[in-house]
Amino acid sequence: MTTPRRGRPRAKDLDTAILQAAIDVFIELGIGGMSIEQVAKRAGVGKPTIYRRWSGKEQLVADAIEAHVSTDIQWPTREEITAGDVRDLLRHNISRAARTATDPRFRALIAQIYGSAVTHPELMRMYWDRYIQPRRDLAFAMFERAQRGGAVDEDADLDVLVDMLAGAVTYRVLQPNPPTERQMRRYLESAYRQVGLLSRD
Amino acid sequence: MTTPRRGRPRAKDLDTAILQAAIDVFIELGIGGMSIEQVAKRAGVGKPTIYRRWSGKEQLVADAIEAHVSTDIQWPTREEITAGDVRDLLRHNISRAARTATDPRFRALIAQIYGSAVTHPELMRMYWDRYIQPRRDLAFAMFERAQRGGAVDEDADLDVLVDMLAGAVTYRVLQPNPPTERQMRRYLESAYRQVGLLSRD
Repeated sequence: MTTPRRGRPRAKDLDTAILQAAIDVFIELGIGGMSIEQVAKRAGVGKPTIYRRWSGKEQLVADAIEAHVSTDIQWPTREEITAGDVRDLLRHNISRAARTATDPRFRALIAQIYGSAVTHPELMRMYWDRYIQPRRDLAFAMFERAQRGGAVDEDADLDVLVDMLAGAVTYRVLQPNPPTERQMRRYLESAYRQVGLLSRD
Repeated sequence: MTTPRRGRPRAKDLDTAILQAAIDVFIELGIGGMSIEQVAKRAGVGKPTIYRRWSGKEQLVADAIEAHVSTDIQWPTREEITAGDVRDLLRHNISRAARTATDPRFRALIAQIYGSAVTHPELMRMYWDRYIQPRRDLAFAMFERAQRGGAVDEDADLDVLVDMLAGAVTYRVLQPNPPTERQMRRYLESAYRQVGLLSRD
């Protein structure tokens, strides 16, 4: 039954198609509502093709989320944060974060990942380790720099401050009447001012 | 086919059983993964019994969430916030919030409500209007009082501050390794200090 089509390039195309279909179905139905069968149908492949590669929908969705977020635009590096102009970095970061946070597909993806946090904690764990933690590390670098400059108190609880920033954004975009990109930019400026990363002038 | 069992008390018991089953199934499977059939099975009733009362799973879950959160312990009133000792109120509020936020069923419910925010916004809207907004109003009253006392800047953006508090809590409890009740109390104290509602001493 093995056909010549199972060569390398074809396999990679298939993977891409399956991962894309998996993200689409996950965004629409959530992990509790989706099945491998639906992903197979959406990707135009048979169920066995998927089961040869993934043991279940949780593993498939974890890989699909990873493939999806790895194409996200890059944050400044730790070196840029230490050396660069903080105000420039923040302005750049705010524009980018406002665009990402108000993208309907991003909102829908975040909602479903949060939705599965308790019933399928492995998805949140994967998203946390691969996507959130590296960004938290950079946020910490920004706060530490602001602490050295005196804009943020030395005894501030940085874990809580980072949660307050990230939490406010997640919370805001999932509220009824989600913000426009422009409203989100102003919102982020206000949040950064509140924690001391932007001055109040 | 109508039987005498459809009298008032029996109908109320049935409603309670159906709403309880609906919350259980929603917490387990999310709105995208659940069906009226599963709720009917869990409640030990026929599907028509549910469809006589609710037109679909969204309406049923909205009512189930409302019934569930209405049994939540009460916040201080606006009068208590204006007249009472702020430190006492906060201490009371922190204990209670830490207990609620670390309750596994509450975490699971919050996760599923956030999970449905984009695909079923009417659920979030209902939860927002009935549960979150009244609590936000009280948080505003606390901030306004703190502004009058000088602990919070007069030009602080209260909408953003309230989101930062509420967002941080939601964000924290849905992270991998959710906090214990004791850790959550310390976390809340730190967050309240950060926004100026608790002093740093």
